[in-house]
Amino acid sequence: MAKVSFPLSEVYCLIEPGPVILMTTVRNGKANIMAQSWHTMMEFEPPLMGCIVSDRNHSYSTLQATGECVINIPSVELAEKVVGCGNTTGAEIDKFEKFRLTPESAARVEAPLVKECFASLECKVVDTSMVDHYGLFVLEVVAAWLDHDMKNHETIHHLGHGNFMIAGRNIHLRSKAK
Amino acid sequence: MAKVSFPLSEVYCLIEPGPVILMTTVRNGKANIMAQSWHTMMEFEPPLMGCIVSDRNHSYSTLQATGECVINIPSVELAEKVVGCGNTTGAEIDKFEKFRLTPESAARVEAPLVKECFASLECKVVDTSMVDHYGLFVLEVVAAWLDHDMKNHETIHHLGHGNFMIAGRNIHLRSKAK
Repeated sequence: MAKVSFPLSEVYCLIEPGPVILMTTVRNGKANIMAQSWHTMMEFEPPLMGCIVSDRNHSYSTLQATGECVINIPSVELAEKVVGCGNTTGAEIDKFEKFRLTPESAARVEAPLVKECFASLECKVVDTSMVDHYGLFVLEVVAAWLDHDMKNHETIHHLGHGNFMIAGRNIHLRSKAK
Repeated sequence: MAKVSFPLSEVYCLIEPGPVILMTTVRNGKANIMAQSWHTMMEFEPPLMGCIVSDRNHSYSTLQATGECVINIPSVELAEKVVGCGNTTGAEIDKFEKFRLTPESAARVEAPLVKECFASLECKVVDTSMVDHYGLFVLEVVAAWLDHDMKNHETIHHLGHGNFMIAGRNIHLRSKAK
């Protein structure tokens, strides 16, 4: 099982469907994981994403200070760990240790990939002008990785109140969209 | 079949999972429909959404000029019509007529609800400071409607290249998140 490079021009295919993601950051050797659903694509290439991170989150100050993160996409097998990450704070625990997730070195940023996630997007913060008002960080994806060996890419989608929708069947339609 | 008022505080439950939406706008009596997947929640209450609309879209200038739209959420039964809306432009055709969709009067905005969608969110543009640079419109949801009689709320999620994921099963986990 190993991730291989994934084309930056195809990153939108991973983000547009709206999966819960695990955002990793690192500062002073301390890595953290945040579960997050408030994100959108903003540009195809270079791929830009908008992510809302509240100043109530432990990751907020690290993201501000380092300008780097990794967006990792978990499949349903990791659902309990994802919720565990959401229910705890990096101010108190090491989430990698607590939830037995494995940090892997990234190529372009200091923040680690989460090995157990089928996809990981290395990101640099490129615009903070909306951070004070909305907590909106504009991220450029500078490297992307996909694990083709992990057969199950059933993503998790937050419905609120502890309910999650799991990705179902796929259909193909004659769309002119990218 | 009729939509009833849906609490504004629960709007995030509809948007966070990342469905394809149909954005309706109206100007000089001409209503238009745009299929869209680039959106995110930005605040719980009052509910704020961020939506990316490119200036290449016919809806862009209408949204700029009127400051209003409706975000409608279609289920899988409407998938062909949704893709039809995505493949055509309101500059050339009346999409309501072409795809046999039914406009319904909204309560707080001029843009129409799409009757066949199970949920509709009436929105006012509240921040255009990121429109020139990113096409990012910040919308406040001022009224929300849900059709409880429509049993199937299987949303459509864009995977790129004409592929769509259909919402699958739901699970419940002990999340502390809203």
